[in-house]
Amino acid sequence: MAADKIETIVSLSKRRGFVFPCSDIYGGSRAAWDYGPLGVELKENIKRQWWKAMVTGREDVVGLDSSVILAPEVWVASGHVATFSDPLTECTSCHKRQRADHLEEAYEAKHGRLPANGLADINCPNCGVKGQFTEPKQFSGMLETHLGPTQDTGSKAYLRPETAQGIFTNFAHVQTTARKKPPFGIAQMGKSFRNEITPGNFIFRTREFEQMEMEFFVKPGEDEQWQEYWMQERWNWYRDLGIREENIRWYEHPKEKLSHYSKRTADIEYRFNFGGNEFSELEGVANRTDFDLKAHSAASGQDLVYFDQESKEKYTPYVIEPAAGVNRAMLAFMLDAYNNEDEAPNAKGVMEKRTVMRLDPRLAPIKVAVLPLSRNPQLSPKAKGLAADLRKFWNIEFDDAGAIGRRYRRQDEIGTPFCVTVDFDTLDDNAVTVRERDTMKQERVSLDQIQSYLGSRLLGC
Amino acid sequence: MAADKIETIVSLSKRRGFVFPCSDIYGGSRAAWDYGPLGVELKENIKRQWWKAMVTGREDVVGLDSSVILAPEVWVASGHVATFSDPLTECTSCHKRQRADHLEEAYEAKHGRLPANGLADINCPNCGVKGQFTEPKQFSGMLETHLGPTQDTGSKAYLRPETAQGIFTNFAHVQTTARKKPPFGIAQMGKSFRNEITPGNFIFRTREFEQMEMEFFVKPGEDEQWQEYWMQERWNWYRDLGIREENIRWYEHPKEKLSHYSKRTADIEYRFNFGGNEFSELEGVANRTDFDLKAHSAASGQDLVYFDQESKEKYTPYVIEPAAGVNRAMLAFMLDAYNNEDEAPNAKGVMEKRTVMRLDPRLAPIKVAVLPLSRNPQLSPKAKGLAADLRKFWNIEFDDAGAIGRRYRRQDEIGTPFCVTVDFDTLDDNAVTVRERDTMKQERVSLDQIQSYLGSRLLGC
Repeated sequence: MAADKIETIVSLSKRRGFVFPCSDIYGGSRAAWDYGPLGVELKENIKRQWWKAMVTGREDVVGLDSSVILAPEVWVASGHVATFSDPLTECTSCHKRQRADHLEEAYEAKHGRLPANGLADINCPNCGVKGQFTEPKQFSGMLETHLGPTQDTGSKAYLRPETAQGIFTNFAHVQTTARKKPPFGIAQMGKSFRNEITPGNFIFRTREFEQMEMEFFVKPGEDEQWQEYWMQERWNWYRDLGIREENIRWYEHPKEKLSHYSKRTADIEYRFNFGGNEFSELEGVANRTDFDLKAHSAASGQDLVYFDQESKEKYTPYVIEPAAGVNRAMLAFMLDAYNNEDEAPNAKGVMEKRTVMRLDPRLAPIKVAVLPLSRNPQLSPKAKGLAADLRKFWNIEFDDAGAIGRRYRRQDEIGTPFCVTVDFDTLDDNAVTVRERDTMKQERVSLDQIQSYLGSRLLGC
Repeated sequence: MAADKIETIVSLSKRRGFVFPCSDIYGGSRAAWDYGPLGVELKENIKRQWWKAMVTGREDVVGLDSSVILAPEVWVASGHVATFSDPLTECTSCHKRQRADHLEEAYEAKHGRLPANGLADINCPNCGVKGQFTEPKQFSGMLETHLGPTQDTGSKAYLRPETAQGIFTNFAHVQTTARKKPPFGIAQMGKSFRNEITPGNFIFRTREFEQMEMEFFVKPGEDEQWQEYWMQERWNWYRDLGIREENIRWYEHPKEKLSHYSKRTADIEYRFNFGGNEFSELEGVANRTDFDLKAHSAASGQDLVYFDQESKEKYTPYVIEPAAGVNRAMLAFMLDAYNNEDEAPNAKGVMEKRTVMRLDPRLAPIKVAVLPLSRNPQLSPKAKGLAADLRKFWNIEFDDAGAIGRRYRRQDEIGTPFCVTVDFDTLDDNAVTVRERDTMKQERVSLDQIQSYLGSRLLGC
């Protein structure tokens, strides 16, 4: 995969309406991105597939939607107030602020070893000057705000940097009302906020992002096998939705670099090809042990243990957490599906280049494009009527602008699995031509059959 | 509707897992609520129905998902920095801070007229002392935060108090990439934040909430008829999903109380029966004119006009905005569906009381409960297998705890449209008993037919 593929995706995203720079009319921002008409559908489809695979499709996981702003005590107990920070350094030559750990990692990726003298050996990636960095300071990654009429410290609050803590604080309520016993999970999707020092790489690292997290509560001693189980499940999820095996790999966090709560963490990495890094984190599967429940139990004075009525055992569950980023997943699905083909037959059978996004139909933003062969007083109303019928079931695009071959290419580029063309024969035979995106094969289907024809090919959409 | 119905819903919500107080283990908060396993499904179903009705089901509206944190310039241009504030007063007797306008409205609701001498005539609702209020001060309703490594004013940012501005700033990108011409709309759902002085009434007024907003761009001069159109559409949406006609009404904002951007605003009000107010706002349909696009055009220097290629006309579109609150809608749907029935036959045909939530099946959190007649080594696996099959299509609950009649009542209370019971006859006739929630009628359905039987009754779910 070429390194400039990211740039191609950024450009396509803006041109076709997947992703726009946030507040672009005011000069834009790298801190966040806005999702356009196609992007919001793709992103929601990814979330829907996750929810189906992780919650409604299973008997042992239930959902939750907790708040972005929790009681400040939550972040003290979880350890975030004390330890959720990054080492910030500034190049005294160009005054650019940077993350010291990222500088060292980039050095290691390039030289195959850590710098012997730390930052002193590193050239500033901004101005090129060597080793003119300030002593790193710890900088909190949590965004702060104030609630209520006064800005005193009593009303200070944080925007959550992860959705997980809202799950832990609701553990007892959910366990009781849903009448679940370990092993069982609580899942949630939602926005989180981190005051990243250096946001970048398109939608990969932003200050505002969306997570899909599930905390799976198990009996201590069964945690290691459940971590293996969830690692496999999550790998399969990406594979099932089309990510190619050669583009993902496991990264095992070394013991000495584990987060304060973790016994073991393994990341699924994707071949994003950012700058010097071939692979970057897509999703982490962590064994959070009983750290969080015990911490909240101690801080709140509430009993967050599980009592097994049958065995009379009482224990604080261990937690296995598969934590995925929605935005990262979207970028990976787009990169993996994007193809430039040199030899594709156009509408006249002549070979041409084409760009095609081979997205799984479940993820594709538009499921079917309905195209009258030409803009015509007989064809257009017929095609519009068909589009309206199909719109009851799927997201449909109607397009009657330009040559039919160009309209096929437009749909290929955004990953639409099927194009349905209404032509002059339709007026006689009451049938339409269905073109499949990947094979470009065309098939004549009766209008009476079109809904069931598409339905059987768009299962689970 | 009894005024204590709200309390019943709050209690049911916590007991059954619809809504929990946020950070309850740390003493809770009125500023936000967390949505449990049933609540998150109900809320997502409402959002899905809105998206279907407003976006994917239409050819003239596309979706968007813009950021919570936009460039600060957005909120200056929109007028929020200058005018988005509430009049804050403090009772000098008990030191409780309150909204002056709410105090006056409550007085007006009780006495049928405004207080002649303003706050001086009003008794403090907290301590009862009369007229000891400070002069009201304007207090900003926007939550502030700081981005990046320093807390200087240059990095000050706001959490959006409405999703609408993200639509206006993306207007040109969306219009171009989606190739739409007025009349067309851009819709989005998402969290917004307001620093409410007095959050309250359960999930009705919170500092963190979810909106479903659509900005419909029209040619100036066509705005008034489009407002009528959208008022009708939105009324029909609530009616179609089960809200009873007698519980909603229109409230026309008086000219002198309109927001700075509005030419006309009409609210759909629901009979929430909060304290002294019988009806409260559910959704507003506003004519925002060309205020926002012109303000952003002037502030950003970007051209936010529409040029019609065919007629060669150039104009700044007017905007009709139906703006709904997800949380308010959820509360209204729950209140409207909640029923206590005095005479309902139990499993043995004896009349008993029952509580039933008559939610539209499209909104119900659980679509089907699968119940073995008793916990039994033959019935339970059969029922579990059926639950697993049905889970591919819908959110299913499996329950084998307690008497069958009690389990029916549990499902009635949370609005589950269908219970499917696996009994000893099932082992012989390969059929199950389907019980419908509202009529309580039971029907024997073959297992070969059960999926299509339920499918035809759960259309659009």
